[in-house]
Amino acid sequence: MTEDTRTRRSGGREGRKAMRASSHGSAEAFLTRTMKPFEIISDEGLELLEHNADTILEEVGVEIRDYPSALDRFRDAGADVSGTRVRFPRGLCRQLVQATAPAVYTQHARNPERNVQIGGDATVFAPNYGSPFAHDLDNGRRYATIADFENFVKLAYMSPYLHHSGGTVCEPVDVPVHKRHLDMVYTHLRYSDKPFMGSVTAGERAADSVELARIGFGGDLQDRTVMTSLINASSPLVWDATMLAAAEVYASANQATIITPFILAGAMAPATSAGVAAQTLAESLAGMAFTQLVRPGAPVIFGSFASSMSMQTGAPTFGTPEPAIVLYTVAALARRLGVPFRSGGSLCASKLPDAQAAYESAATLQPTILGGVNFVLHAAGWLEGGLAIGYEKFVLDCDQLGMMATFVKGLDLSDNGQALDAIKEHQPGMHFLGTAHTLANFETAFYRSSTADNSSYEQWLDEGSLDAAQRANKVWKEQLAAYEPPPIDDAIDEELREYIARRKAVLPDSFA
Amino acid sequence: MTEDTRTRRSGGREGRKAMRASSHGSAEAFLTRTMKPFEIISDEGLELLEHNADTILEEVGVEIRDYPSALDRFRDAGADVSGTRVRFPRGLCRQLVQATAPAVYTQHARNPERNVQIGGDATVFAPNYGSPFAHDLDNGRRYATIADFENFVKLAYMSPYLHHSGGTVCEPVDVPVHKRHLDMVYTHLRYSDKPFMGSVTAGERAADSVELARIGFGGDLQDRTVMTSLINASSPLVWDATMLAAAEVYASANQATIITPFILAGAMAPATSAGVAAQTLAESLAGMAFTQLVRPGAPVIFGSFASSMSMQTGAPTFGTPEPAIVLYTVAALARRLGVPFRSGGSLCASKLPDAQAAYESAATLQPTILGGVNFVLHAAGWLEGGLAIGYEKFVLDCDQLGMMATFVKGLDLSDNGQALDAIKEHQPGMHFLGTAHTLANFETAFYRSSTADNSSYEQWLDEGSLDAAQRANKVWKEQLAAYEPPPIDDAIDEELREYIARRKAVLPDSFA
Repeated sequence: MTEDTRTRRSGGREGRKAMRASSHGSAEAFLTRTMKPFEIISDEGLELLEHNADTILEEVGVEIRDYPSALDRFRDAGADVSGTRVRFPRGLCRQLVQATAPAVYTQHARNPERNVQIGGDATVFAPNYGSPFAHDLDNGRRYATIADFENFVKLAYMSPYLHHSGGTVCEPVDVPVHKRHLDMVYTHLRYSDKPFMGSVTAGERAADSVELARIGFGGDLQDRTVMTSLINASSPLVWDATMLAAAEVYASANQATIITPFILAGAMAPATSAGVAAQTLAESLAGMAFTQLVRPGAPVIFGSFASSMSMQTGAPTFGTPEPAIVLYTVAALARRLGVPFRSGGSLCASKLPDAQAAYESAATLQPTILGGVNFVLHAAGWLEGGLAIGYEKFVLDCDQLGMMATFVKGLDLSDNGQALDAIKEHQPGMHFLGTAHTLANFETAFYRSSTADNSSYEQWLDEGSLDAAQRANKVWKEQLAAYEPPPIDDAIDEELREYIARRKAVLPDSFA
Repeated sequence: MTEDTRTRRSGGREGRKAMRASSHGSAEAFLTRTMKPFEIISDEGLELLEHNADTILEEVGVEIRDYPSALDRFRDAGADVSGTRVRFPRGLCRQLVQATAPAVYTQHARNPERNVQIGGDATVFAPNYGSPFAHDLDNGRRYATIADFENFVKLAYMSPYLHHSGGTVCEPVDVPVHKRHLDMVYTHLRYSDKPFMGSVTAGERAADSVELARIGFGGDLQDRTVMTSLINASSPLVWDATMLAAAEVYASANQATIITPFILAGAMAPATSAGVAAQTLAESLAGMAFTQLVRPGAPVIFGSFASSMSMQTGAPTFGTPEPAIVLYTVAALARRLGVPFRSGGSLCASKLPDAQAAYESAATLQPTILGGVNFVLHAAGWLEGGLAIGYEKFVLDCDQLGMMATFVKGLDLSDNGQALDAIKEHQPGMHFLGTAHTLANFETAFYRSSTADNSSYEQWLDEGSLDAAQRANKVWKEQLAAYEPPPIDDAIDEELREYIARRKAVLPDSFA
């Protein structure tokens, strides 16, 4: 924590005014979708993909690297283990997952009003994850720091449309690798009261995360899940020791994991969507089964991250139709399996918060919502294939998340919604602007964007001809200026700091 | 037609190179959706809205302004006519439409390979319509001219993702009002061979459009529909003489019309989505019934244009959740009625091709596709609530349309799509880049964006740090430079020109 970000909280009148202006009514702890998910394939097609995933698990299997205890667990459960290769009888992983993994779980937040449901009709938005760079219009793109990390935790805390504080919202590269997980978890606990994610870059860092959460939540965690953490496969079909160790720590402590094959189609999987879907299911089934072997009933999310690829350069591409097709497909597979699903977000390849960024992000976020994704990482801030988190992008994305919060409520068919009396009392050709019905619905009739300009061309010129990114630049500055931290018990804060100081004293300073 | 735009067609090597680079394989005449539309409400909800529409038609009715023959037609069909007010027995309009209006029709193009199916699983993209201003990055926003009109007809002709040449792609304000319809129809016939729309701003201009089409298509039109033209209601619940006269001309000639209530919710209808949907159905039913009374079986499209409103300024807003909800709802009502449906597009309020424009356009275009819209006006170019057409926006939108063309094909479950053998022949941990399956799918695996930048940050810097709009600025210039007109029979071209010269000689030059 740097001093300058911590003294910036007073904000002042302008900042608070801006906050009020950009706040759109009371926040919901999570979204509850009222529409059935959009389905793009038949049950027969989904059965075929499940069959293919079983074939992959049976004939190819998964490689378990440098983690012998996982081999033992799988062997004991009935898998065929040969060296570091694990092959599964058809249906075994599915049975292990379906026997004990919950369809829905609650992730507790430090503020109980912010507890989130994960699974079922619920959708939870969490910010960007893992970017080494930060971007804003004033300073351009540079390495992210712990000050950026704190800023984004604060911005996520203030957004009524982010339900979750996320995890590594950006990499604080000015803090040594071995220590930064401590500062990150502390920041989530201290500067937000929304649910958050723990560290996964080593088993002992996961253990530190669990210990800090235990302190932060004032007691034993066995009866409640307070972290949902991100476990990525090393696709194709490899699980490495780092991820397995972190998954084991979290599952043992009854904390949730997101088991996510991270697939650049054409590189880590075949270049076709049905191939990506079957391989994703196979990899994730093996990982989810592992968590259930560690602790039956540990909450686990079926994750899928799939991007297309530029066949010229090998670079990941976003917002193209193929990842949307994969998302709808794998979401349906997750529903059939009966576990929560993570995918999507506001993904883009653009370096700027420009039209490319917005088109690509929207082309990911719409399927995210319509496909019925339960946990949405990277819902705000993502730029440049995840290499950077953008301040303006974050603000623009949050506005879109707000629109989704309204959209998922669906059509209001109440008497007021039908408005039949208003139409009947009206003469053809007369406008509705001053009518009682319009006045009664004035405040809530339409979502009010905090970043869109809807004024006349002349007024827009008068106000400086700003584009959306330039307007968003003002918004995040106003929000940070107005930030006030949530309350925390002084004794808990002290205990957190003592734990961190103790750990930092014994951990090396290496940045590698 | 200005001389400078007509001599620009040679293009040269650079232009053609650019065209090849931005052309993504062979164009389809229209999209065929493979997925069922996304449904957001139950059959009971839709029945309720139909009941409400009938109540509106029965109790309030529609006002017919300055067009006594329409009153006669409605009275003869069984409606209750009192002065200029027409009230309909429950179900009458629906019966009139369902008895004779086709569920699907073919709009013929001058090039038969470009004939489009309108209705059913087909989606047809047409460009922007009606903007008095044009915008590009070099010249900013200014009144549109016939040169702009020609440019956009050429760009639409060259895009593999626009299926239709549209109508008033922009208002050529440098041509007198009484004459510009002649130049517009000629431009569509001469500089494109895609299907197009006729003039609707007066009955006699519609008649000119029919006559020019008859010449352009070389004969009688009674056996084929070659124009689909836009008839807007004067909401709430008014049909005026201009629109009725144009609709009558087109229906009499077996040409298609799009009967569209244009509703700014809160102004021309109640501020609630269910109210907008019921009123839209009522207004459109009356208009569609009129076309069937004029000529039973004349092709007619159920249109809906609904935007939300800034409750502060009264300005229309786009890309918000409420119009998406209306779109999904009215699309389902149109399917129940059994006629083709027009709505959506790439709508936005932004003045620039920036992130706002892209987010808003995507938030309209995605529902357009997923809701199963059959005819999509404003699919490319729309800016500033329709006041302007943008060159860069046009290019960016067309790229998105291309993505939709891929998306609607859905998941490929062929053996090649499943790629099971490729996965089985592979070892875990090895990448797929050089495999036979990836190489075999190299060219077609992923949609290639013509405007997105997916290069590394460093390469992007080297290439000038351009944003999406700046890249699009290059694309449209390259395309116009490479434009070559489709062939036309010299005798037909001569006859078109003679007709136009004859008409211009007798029409006044007034710009009002």
